[in-house]
Amino acid sequence: MSIRIGIAGYGNLGKGAELAVRANADMELVAIFSRRAGKQGAQLDVSVPLCSIEDAADMVSDIDVMLLCGGSASDLPEQGPYFASMFNTVDSYDTHAKIPGYLASVDAAAKNTTAIISTGWDPGLFSMMRVLFGAALSEGKTYTFWGKGLSQGHSDAVRRIDGVKHAAQYTIPNEEAISTVRSGQNPVFTARDKHMRECFVVVEPGSEKAKIENAIKNMPNYFADFNTTVNFIDEAEFMANHSEMPHGGVVLHSGKTGTNNQAMEFSLKLDSNPEFTGSVLAAYARAAFRMSQEGLYGAKTVFDIPLGYLHEKDRASLIKELL
Amino acid sequence: MSIRIGIAGYGNLGKGAELAVRANADMELVAIFSRRAGKQGAQLDVSVPLCSIEDAADMVSDIDVMLLCGGSASDLPEQGPYFASMFNTVDSYDTHAKIPGYLASVDAAAKNTTAIISTGWDPGLFSMMRVLFGAALSEGKTYTFWGKGLSQGHSDAVRRIDGVKHAAQYTIPNEEAISTVRSGQNPVFTARDKHMRECFVVVEPGSEKAKIENAIKNMPNYFADFNTTVNFIDEAEFMANHSEMPHGGVVLHSGKTGTNNQAMEFSLKLDSNPEFTGSVLAAYARAAFRMSQEGLYGAKTVFDIPLGYLHEKDRASLIKELL
Repeated sequence: MSIRIGIAGYGNLGKGAELAVRANADMELVAIFSRRAGKQGAQLDVSVPLCSIEDAADMVSDIDVMLLCGGSASDLPEQGPYFASMFNTVDSYDTHAKIPGYLASVDAAAKNTTAIISTGWDPGLFSMMRVLFGAALSEGKTYTFWGKGLSQGHSDAVRRIDGVKHAAQYTIPNEEAISTVRSGQNPVFTARDKHMRECFVVVEPGSEKAKIENAIKNMPNYFADFNTTVNFIDEAEFMANHSEMPHGGVVLHSGKTGTNNQAMEFSLKLDSNPEFTGSVLAAYARAAFRMSQEGLYGAKTVFDIPLGYLHEKDRASLIKELL
Repeated sequence: MSIRIGIAGYGNLGKGAELAVRANADMELVAIFSRRAGKQGAQLDVSVPLCSIEDAADMVSDIDVMLLCGGSASDLPEQGPYFASMFNTVDSYDTHAKIPGYLASVDAAAKNTTAIISTGWDPGLFSMMRVLFGAALSEGKTYTFWGKGLSQGHSDAVRRIDGVKHAAQYTIPNEEAISTVRSGQNPVFTARDKHMRECFVVVEPGSEKAKIENAIKNMPNYFADFNTTVNFIDEAEFMANHSEMPHGGVVLHSGKTGTNNQAMEFSLKLDSNPEFTGSVLAAYARAAFRMSQEGLYGAKTVFDIPLGYLHEKDRASLIKELL
């Protein structure tokens, strides 16, 4: 029997989740829910209905797990508790500072469901490594570097500047800083030491490039604390070279046991950030389904879930083949 | 209140575990149990008693978790079930093919205790990555490479050859093979493609080196399927350069979502294999203690344990600081 999946939100992440559900033999996509319902034919498999978000409440008995693929800024704070009151859910809520509040609101709603929040890769796999590394080698220090990769938030920030038509912002880790950590030193970094930012910008005709460049480089929080380069390009080049969503990064932990150096490292190299995130969501859908079968209700994080729940194979097979 | 730890077995791993317990503020070493009891003064802290294995049965109420640091060949098959019948335990049983049988025998004994088997790094952290990677990206292939590092088992095998006085065998991963995996290809390797073996050997006076080299290179299972180099050195050089126990390795997973390549990688670079393994055992001691407090008895593997159980900080702090 397949795990019956619904997808709520059909942007880049929802489409990535759709691909992932197809890639897992024990899952079956039942319906996609979108505010832009009615655009039938957008789905990979057009026999999967594209419904409006409001229709979901009538499909409680048809769906085992709902993958919440909306955004963290405005969709999930509302949709997380709403869906968790009816369905087992998995989401990738990623506003780090607000996670405890979000967890509490989802937990209050998930009385008879299992709701796994903040999966994906950061928060998600990277968070798991931070916990595992800190526990496995307590006399050590953990570093997270992101990139090279497209940052949606920073690209949006550049696009909000007057005169900007298109913008892509790449976060680039400082390889020298990574090498310092790998060498077993435990350096203290500023934000500027760890990452650089590179922007590719298409301007509206007649805009003043020097002014735009200045506005980017001095933007507080987003760019002012980093070394930023700004490249002005034309629309054709932008469409040709900056429409993909690669990302990745590395979590490093370097420490000591007695006088010996020990180092752990986890890295991701992703050609498509939303497709990989969707793939992680699908693995956690399996966990949500299994935990709900066992009555393990409430809001859960990646720290609360045994790894065996994520894999298609059963416990005995995992122990025999992968331990 | 500290977690009260006992260490059973006081070779390299036991000494690594002793260091690790000292490095964790929430743990306290109560006693070390060894067949070589009576060698008082060997402990880092001489106020910790060095007892005989038989004394352990009288200390059930003094110890929360027993770290089993004996060998997999002859110690653990007997000691695993024996200690699990009285104590929460953590071990690093590493005879991969016999793990299911070992698990069953420990599980039968662990009626009122939590017994975590086969921790460390392989089995252990590497196993966890194999499960996590396969689940997070189901259309992919996982590769494990070991080294560069000292293999105890292969060193022992060389030492058993007539005329060999000392031997150290290093397992060396083929960097070209690793690069092929990193490039996103999913190659099929033979054993010879993945690893090389390098031996440093001190012979007894009058031994025939050519014969020893031949015996090593043609030894079935251990060397015959690999490209092996043998270096004969004198005892002084051996003691100076081959007394350390470095190890490490990498787990790589390369796959696709749709048409996009995605890659995950986990690596360890360890100056001391037994000290790192001891450090992982200490983290799992925390999990064994907490799970036993919750009545989660029986034999467990690294696939069964939420990561949050491993870390000194409580759930709310982990979510706030590391998610």
